[in-house]
Amino acid sequence: MGDLHWETKLSTTSENGIRIRGYDLVQLIGTVPFPSVLYLLFTGELPEPNVAKLIDAVMVASIDHGPGAPSALAARTAASGGASLGAAAAAGLLTMGKYHGAAVQDAMEAIQQVADSSKNQALDRAADAVVADWRKAGRRLSGFGHRQHKHKDPRLERLFELAHAANVPGDHLQAAHAIEAALKRSTGKDLPINIDGAMAAILCEINFPVSLSNGLFMLARMTGIIAHAHEEITQMPPMRRIDPVDFDYAGPAERDLTNIG
Amino acid sequence: MGDLHWETKLSTTSENGIRIRGYDLVQLIGTVPFPSVLYLLFTGELPEPNVAKLIDAVMVASIDHGPGAPSALAARTAASGGASLGAAAAAGLLTMGKYHGAAVQDAMEAIQQVADSSKNQALDRAADAVVADWRKAGRRLSGFGHRQHKHKDPRLERLFELAHAANVPGDHLQAAHAIEAALKRSTGKDLPINIDGAMAAILCEINFPVSLSNGLFMLARMTGIIAHAHEEITQMPPMRRIDPVDFDYAGPAERDLTNIG
Amino acid sequence: MGDLHWETKLSTTSENGIRIRGYDLVQLIGTVPFPSVLYLLFTGELPEPNVAKLIDAVMVASIDHGPGAPSALAARTAASGGASLGAAAAAGLLTMGKYHGAAVQDAMEAIQQVADSSKNQALDRAADAVVADWRKAGRRLSGFGHRQHKHKDPRLERLFELAHAANVPGDHLQAAHAIEAALKRSTGKDLPINIDGAMAAILCEINFPVSLSNGLFMLARMTGIIAHAHEEITQMPPMRRIDPVDFDYAGPAERDLTNIG
Amino acid sequence: MGDLHWETKLSTTSENGIRIRGYDLVQLIGTVPFPSVLYLLFTGELPEPNVAKLIDAVMVASIDHGPGAPSALAARTAASGGASLGAAAAAGLLTMGKYHGAAVQDAMEAIQQVADSSKNQALDRAADAVVADWRKAGRRLSGFGHRQHKHKDPRLERLFELAHAANVPGDHLQAAHAIEAALKRSTGKDLPINIDGAMAAILCEINFPVSLSNGLFMLARMTGIIAHAHEEITQMPPMRRIDPVDFDYAGPAERDLTNIG
Repeated sequence: MGDLHWETKLSTTSENGIRIRGYDLVQLIGTVPFPSVLYLLFTGELPEPNVAKLIDAVMVASIDHGPGAPSALAARTAASGGASLGAAAAAGLLTMGKYHGAAVQDAMEAIQQVADSSKNQALDRAADAVVADWRKAGRRLSGFGHRQHKHKDPRLERLFELAHAANVPGDHLQAAHAIEAALKRSTGKDLPINIDGAMAAILCEINFPVSLSNGLFMLARMTGIIAHAHEEITQMPPMRRIDPVDFDYAGPAERDLTNIG
Repeated sequence: MGDLHWETKLSTTSENGIRIRGYDLVQLIGTVPFPSVLYLLFTGELPEPNVAKLIDAVMVASIDHGPGAPSALAARTAASGGASLGAAAAAGLLTMGKYHGAAVQDAMEAIQQVADSSKNQALDRAADAVVADWRKAGRRLSGFGHRQHKHKDPRLERLFELAHAANVPGDHLQAAHAIEAALKRSTGKDLPINIDGAMAAILCEINFPVSLSNGLFMLARMTGIIAHAHEEITQMPPMRRIDPVDFDYAGPAERDLTNIG
Repeated sequence: MGDLHWETKLSTTSENGIRIRGYDLVQLIGTVPFPSVLYLLFTGELPEPNVAKLIDAVMVASIDHGPGAPSALAARTAASGGASLGAAAAAGLLTMGKYHGAAVQDAMEAIQQVADSSKNQALDRAADAVVADWRKAGRRLSGFGHRQHKHKDPRLERLFELAHAANVPGDHLQAAHAIEAALKRSTGKDLPINIDGAMAAILCEINFPVSLSNGLFMLARMTGIIAHAHEEITQMPPMRRIDPVDFDYAGPAERDLTNIG
Repeated sequence: MGDLHWETKLSTTSENGIRIRGYDLVQLIGTVPFPSVLYLLFTGELPEPNVAKLIDAVMVASIDHGPGAPSALAARTAASGGASLGAAAAAGLLTMGKYHGAAVQDAMEAIQQVADSSKNQALDRAADAVVADWRKAGRRLSGFGHRQHKHKDPRLERLFELAHAANVPGDHLQAAHAIEAALKRSTGKDLPINIDGAMAAILCEINFPVSLSNGLFMLARMTGIIAHAHEEITQMPPMRRIDPVDFDYAGPAERDLTNIG
């Protein structure tokens, strides 16, 4: 043990195998689903079944946002220049900066502030105070107001439905709705909870670490990024000019899960 | 529709939501598990239940390999220099190059060659021919021979067990074993199937696209990379000298899944 | 000195300062120009004055190729998503793959093969043989044929002029011209030396390491990438759709070096 | 001209060639040195000769810091995993985060604040006020105090010597010295100007844009990063454990510039 000795609480490897937070990886394989092992690695404990279902749902909700997402376009641009699949994926990952993906973490902070301070005062007043603080500090309240969807994003209702079905405590969901109302009072504008805000509220409900929420989003979205990079590498001519809006979908027709039988 | 118009077969967004390969994302959320939606995005179709279970198993088997893996060390080094979580994860991702992660793809190619050519000749002769070809071309047969585990990697037996339980056809698993035997005949050395070879054989069994196998591994391992980068950012002093071997595990003690109840 | 002890031939730091390939960095600062110190670090020796001039010229010729270059677009896309200057630059760097920047290295290989084999046979026959080999192997002869400039790229003439003024031996320049003629004989098409081929010939003339030629190009072009990422970060709205062709130059009007006085 | 039309002030390409900030690139090649064309691209104007000399000097001073620098280690780690030269360089670049390279920008901000506010008050009081503000805000005054060199970093004296020879105005150099003195008064500790502070003061003297100072450092250091990645790729075994301190220099012996003749 030398001067540079250090410790990790995540995992260990030995001749007997790999352990993740104390659990034998071999036991986890085929027994615990991937999103739950991710939760174990990120938080230190396996999730309860209702939490496991929500983690999986949040990851599926984040898996792709079409070929016009900046991260997909950057990955395709790199692939078009001849990058490997991994290098193209890295270019996409680097595009998920403070305007593209970081919103969930900001929203979690605001929602937790409201939920915490509502223990000592009415929820409405707690939300008003946090909204006033953020506006005073010039911080945008990410997670509220629709950037991309003119109409209500249908992913929201589904996520809220699953959260209720999972019997989460509900205080952070209420805090998110209180922020929405406080923003209306403060700005006069409709700034409804958006997909980032909904995911933030649900991650708060299941005690997901705030500082890893972007990591969760990045990991889930990496799926779409890899798929776009791969399509570019295998199907498109090199060095093409990639238009960010002039594209169409030419895949399988609209189909319904119920058809699967 | 301009000169640069292009098409994708992956996904589409509209005011009505997001569709992945034709399926409404909202229907997928909470209904189809994340690894299966990944399979849908990567291959175009949802997996059968037995395939879904194997994809999940391969992803869990790849999720982390301890703090000494080059990708974890690179991510920690970047984090220690002050990189953001995403930038540190990108440094880790870029480390998964041809010696670290690409083995699965190479092994899939060899296994498919043997399985294909065994339709016209005995399996042993097919394996002998492929091994001879690869050796002549100076290509290392990744997926065979243990780099890291002196003893049998316990993940292998678990994966094979799950593959048999899933009732896969089995011809690619047989091809992998035939390569192991052919290598022994050709080199005189024991070069048993390793974890990369086992995952390759299973991905062949479920028709996973060869050119996306590294993508699958990178995505799964990104979980470990993000966890290591996050621990470095939140728990370690900046600009520390990161020893690649002088570390210990200081997390939860060894524990058993059966304790969960 | 432990089991992992290793050695470098590049540089060393101590309490007395930094030495690059044996030279005290302090002596180099303000005495030897940056491109020559780069040459020292890359090759092990300081360049002769004529070589120093050519390295500088090749670097200036590579410094930027306008906002439509894939690497500039990828860096801007990442910046637009909120990436830091460094992360955006990395996305640009990753875009310089085998179709965008790697041409110089390929061309150097072909030119060296012709120059080497012309020692035993007529230059024309040497070029014919190399062209035949590359075409048989299905390799594109990068460095010949104009991708981007319909007319003669004016950078070429300037680089050749400087090479002649520098009194380089000239055999690799002749080899490059011999390849151009051999391509005409073999394909019937005009595939004139392009900027990549010209830089390749000059780098061959000054014994620049083939395996570092892409590194030289990437480093020089990183200047443009950083400038584009910085303009995006400081002047453009976040999350904008970046059109790859619909842009104009709005900087200082055309001006002449001779006006500088 | 469509909805997404946008403008750049950096450069333009046409059939007639490439123009950088209005200058024909062909005229610049072989006439204006690389660091001066970089200055043109970054700032909009060519530097005066004394400024050109200082830019070059700052770039040479930043070109490498030995194999133990985190960015060199990350690039080597990625290369050891099988990354390409560009991907390994990107891993190194991403390591130049807020603790490794960003110091110059922070120091420029502090120095400019002192120089600006000293127009209305004594320099000492201006420095005291800025030091008090930064300490109150909990910001570390980068650029002061030696992290790596126990003794005086010999690069400093050389850079100051060149700055004086270049006849810079000197007010920002004085501001840097005033901060050093104010830190002594405020903390009781010796926190002398370090290499980051010296480069910051000089970049302030020549009106280099603060928001591009990290870009300049990253670009210069990318030279060392590429050299280390290349040595790893070409000279070292794959997947080796890279010790961050247990290495020696085995290159050319110490030599003197004056020997060059």
